[in-house]
Amino acid sequence: MHYLNEEHLLVFLGQVLVLLTVAKVLGELCQQRGIPALAGEIFTGILLGPTILGRVFPGIEARLFPHDIAQQTMLETVSWFGVLFLLLATGFEISISTVWKQGKAALTMGVVGIVAPFILGCVLFWWLPERHWGEASDRVTFTLFLATAASISAIPVIARILHDLEILKSDFGLTTLSAFIVNDVVGWLGFTMVLGLAHPHGAGASEVARILFEILLFGTVCMTVGSKVVGAINGKLQATNLPQPGTTLTFICCLGLMCGTITQWIGIHAILGFFLAGIMAGNAPEVSEKTRQTISQVIHAIFVPVFFATIGIKIDFLANVDFFLVLLVTAVAVGGKFIGGWIGARVAGLSKPDILSAAVARIPGGAMEIVLGILALELQLISDDVFVALVFAAIASSVAAGPLLAWSIRRRKRLDIGQLLSRDAVVLEMGSETRWDAIQELCRRVAAALPELDQKAIEKAVRAREEIMGTGLERGVAVPHARLKGLESPVVAFGRSRVGIDWDARDGLPTRFVFLILTPEDEQGIQVQILAAIARIMSGAEVPARLIAAQNEDEAFGLLNEALNLGGLVPNRAPA
Amino acid sequence: MHYLNEEHLLVFLGQVLVLLTVAKVLGELCQQRGIPALAGEIFTGILLGPTILGRVFPGIEARLFPHDIAQQTMLETVSWFGVLFLLLATGFEISISTVWKQGKAALTMGVVGIVAPFILGCVLFWWLPERHWGEASDRVTFTLFLATAASISAIPVIARILHDLEILKSDFGLTTLSAFIVNDVVGWLGFTMVLGLAHPHGAGASEVARILFEILLFGTVCMTVGSKVVGAINGKLQATNLPQPGTTLTFICCLGLMCGTITQWIGIHAILGFFLAGIMAGNAPEVSEKTRQTISQVIHAIFVPVFFATIGIKIDFLANVDFFLVLLVTAVAVGGKFIGGWIGARVAGLSKPDILSAAVARIPGGAMEIVLGILALELQLISDDVFVALVFAAIASSVAAGPLLAWSIRRRKRLDIGQLLSRDAVVLEMGSETRWDAIQELCRRVAAALPELDQKAIEKAVRAREEIMGTGLERGVAVPHARLKGLESPVVAFGRSRVGIDWDARDGLPTRFVFLILTPEDEQGIQVQILAAIARIMSGAEVPARLIAAQNEDEAFGLLNEALNLGGLVPNRAPA
Repeated sequence: MHYLNEEHLLVFLGQVLVLLTVAKVLGELCQQRGIPALAGEIFTGILLGPTILGRVFPGIEARLFPHDIAQQTMLETVSWFGVLFLLLATGFEISISTVWKQGKAALTMGVVGIVAPFILGCVLFWWLPERHWGEASDRVTFTLFLATAASISAIPVIARILHDLEILKSDFGLTTLSAFIVNDVVGWLGFTMVLGLAHPHGAGASEVARILFEILLFGTVCMTVGSKVVGAINGKLQATNLPQPGTTLTFICCLGLMCGTITQWIGIHAILGFFLAGIMAGNAPEVSEKTRQTISQVIHAIFVPVFFATIGIKIDFLANVDFFLVLLVTAVAVGGKFIGGWIGARVAGLSKPDILSAAVARIPGGAMEIVLGILALELQLISDDVFVALVFAAIASSVAAGPLLAWSIRRRKRLDIGQLLSRDAVVLEMGSETRWDAIQELCRRVAAALPELDQKAIEKAVRAREEIMGTGLERGVAVPHARLKGLESPVVAFGRSRVGIDWDARDGLPTRFVFLILTPEDEQGIQVQILAAIARIMSGAEVPARLIAAQNEDEAFGLLNEALNLGGLVPNRAPA
Repeated sequence: MHYLNEEHLLVFLGQVLVLLTVAKVLGELCQQRGIPALAGEIFTGILLGPTILGRVFPGIEARLFPHDIAQQTMLETVSWFGVLFLLLATGFEISISTVWKQGKAALTMGVVGIVAPFILGCVLFWWLPERHWGEASDRVTFTLFLATAASISAIPVIARILHDLEILKSDFGLTTLSAFIVNDVVGWLGFTMVLGLAHPHGAGASEVARILFEILLFGTVCMTVGSKVVGAINGKLQATNLPQPGTTLTFICCLGLMCGTITQWIGIHAILGFFLAGIMAGNAPEVSEKTRQTISQVIHAIFVPVFFATIGIKIDFLANVDFFLVLLVTAVAVGGKFIGGWIGARVAGLSKPDILSAAVARIPGGAMEIVLGILALELQLISDDVFVALVFAAIASSVAAGPLLAWSIRRRKRLDIGQLLSRDAVVLEMGSETRWDAIQELCRRVAAALPELDQKAIEKAVRAREEIMGTGLERGVAVPHARLKGLESPVVAFGRSRVGIDWDARDGLPTRFVFLILTPEDEQGIQVQILAAIARIMSGAEVPARLIAAQNEDEAFGLLNEALNLGGLVPNRAPA
């Protein structure tokens, strides 16, 4: 029987308190400056660990993080909890059906986007000297792993950036996110293979083949039968009298633990199992959004910051910094992904300005690169200095992506968006009560002014897009849209609902302002500008307030026309 | 630098998976039979630990729970997380203002209720032989601790039982719960003193005095300034642009960690700090109910079951069972608390049938007794066999309390509750939109038939009661009530609202059925029966459906009259 003594508990509580508080404060300071919170969280460890505190006040650092096995294990356990459930929560974001409906474009962008940096990485990392390998590694394993890590993307980072730029809901945003999902799945498969190769239990060819076979089988079962079984069980749990959402929480937690145990047992890391469990739970419609949010909130509020902060406690970042290595890894991670994103978007047939934005969006490595890095470090596939370079690349790319993407949109030519809105396409008192009725109501208005198009066809296209992913933004704005064959120039319609319509928006608010955006089929770029312009004018307090107060269609039309003209941006071609 | 290897992680995930799954399933099975889930969770450890699995399949048990320090520490950390945050969540339930408004009755019942079993425990446990003491204990410390543990109560258990019997919202329920809160605070103070006495760092008188002084100072600061500061900080956090409720979650977690670190530093266990932090967060109106629920849900869904399940892993319950000890501890814990509850309720002036119910309600020791026990075991104040006896007493008392309390209510004489409702006091179409208007509307109706009472006085009494604790039940029923001076016999009024009134009910549903219950001031017992009878007829599907369909007052009156007469119960005196 083993009990931790009181000193252990005191130090442990102190550690978690300090790490969590500092990580949250620094993370928040970063986020307010447009930098991902991850950067602040990683810096917490650098600040409190051997790198800075250990140099300046070695006594305090030794007292706060003593070298005692039981003590280190306690913090390590919390940090494991963080990373395992981070992957579970990341899995929630992966919507298989969205990717499926997006089809070829997302698939092409996703696969090309990871293959290009991977090849570049393999070519360059092959020549790195042996001292950078981990103790249990060889040239092939090391090269393959590092190239994979440099190619993987961070879905949460890019989702947040697209959201901040208010273009997450555009077709561009949808395609980009879908491509990222493909990228992640391919990346994890690749990582799995590398792990299979590197497995310590006598890495014979038959052993590698067994691991690969088992993990592919398990993954396939999860993605097909698994999702349905999870949904069915959850439906059953909810139909009973058990207290909700507690029971669902326990169920999802057990699901993660089970998949994690299975993948760990197979010989791949438990982290992949949690990721698969997250995808299953995320794709089961029976698991309510609220339950997923509860899990995500607690994980991100408590465990994830502690995990990232702990990284810097383990490694002296100054002693292990190798500038050549940092430059090389960052160049491959950023440059390789940029090239991959460029080629992928080109092959997928995106418009010229969108290709640049898509390439920039591919850059961030974020949490996923670091997670892969820490796994590789733990399995002794890489040395400390390679890990430090990887962390630097992950953070630098995440920090740079936001401003670069904003710039790629800003540099497009200005467009007089106000002129796209016609006086007849403004409805002040919408009668619709559902979003589908509202779409129909606005489509009917627009169709009257577009004799070249069939009203039914317009409506069908907008509904189809809406079904793939809802277009409700926050603060009561919705932006249903579609690209239409035969349409000559973009058209915008506006409708106001006094009662508010349930558009399934993330913030739960009823939608009071509906903008219908129709663009020509081959001009994808323009949609991003229109959407961004609308989001921008509606994000302030003034325009919505004046729209609510508008007494008649003329007033609303004049107001929107003026505001949109000031906020408009345009692609590199002449305005249509 | 220390890393856990893959084997550690695999075993750890397997442990948590098995413990959590089995604990939840057994806990659920118990709960469906009216037994607290705690019993099932504790049994999980007995089943999977040395007691049963270790005897039947020692190989499997050794493989699942290996004797490795790092491995044990991982599970121990999760279990610590569970117990610390369980106390935080328990603190949420403690409403200082409710106790304050309840005044002397709650205070008397709370203090007498703990002093009586404590004295009984001291007298009996003093004579226990030395082999039952822990290694770091002496006769005084051992006796004082064990007497305290046997006297403490389990707020969550009794709150759930009162809720299941649908009398939580009665004056009896309110007083009982308030008394429990007083009991808990006194109990923890006592425990603190025992810990101060038992402190290992040379337990000199000056050291004990320092600990007591510091903890009292810290506790007082928490309860006065602390709550306000917590509220103010939280208000500020919510006024900023930070993402909610994530920021609040982090804040409350940090608050718990901070208070825990402080109390642990002082020399009392961190668990008291988390409890204080929970009370502070629970009493700050700025901390939303939703945030508290999110924390409670995750804690109870994942960490608490693992904590209770882990207990049985550490101890062989069969080898350490001493029947005489089990009988003695259970007798003191159950009998002492029953006597204390009886005397307390008597001194507080409750009615005769309510005294019996109050005494029975005092019985459950539940989670708190076990938490105190595990702390004492860890500090080597008690031996394993005393701990086993304590666990048995805690579970037995929790299991017995529910059926006994139901019996204490059932044995009261039957009362024709239907006759308390008069035809004139039935309102089918209430015009009120708020609960305060609804109370006024029904009071006005009732006052017309009660010339001996002033309408304003009735309304004031009902509003005052409502303000202490809302009377909204689940499924759209509300039961505002008051005890009135000068009223000769109980009166019930009924109102139906087609629109639904927001009564701040726990399930968030609007209230459609309002029962106003007025009883004579000195007849407390009768209120419990009326409330229980109403809750019983409204918990089925039939009566609410027929009430909604009722076309006129006569139909509704006839329906209620008949249903209430079938479900009525009465105190030991003649019906008024």
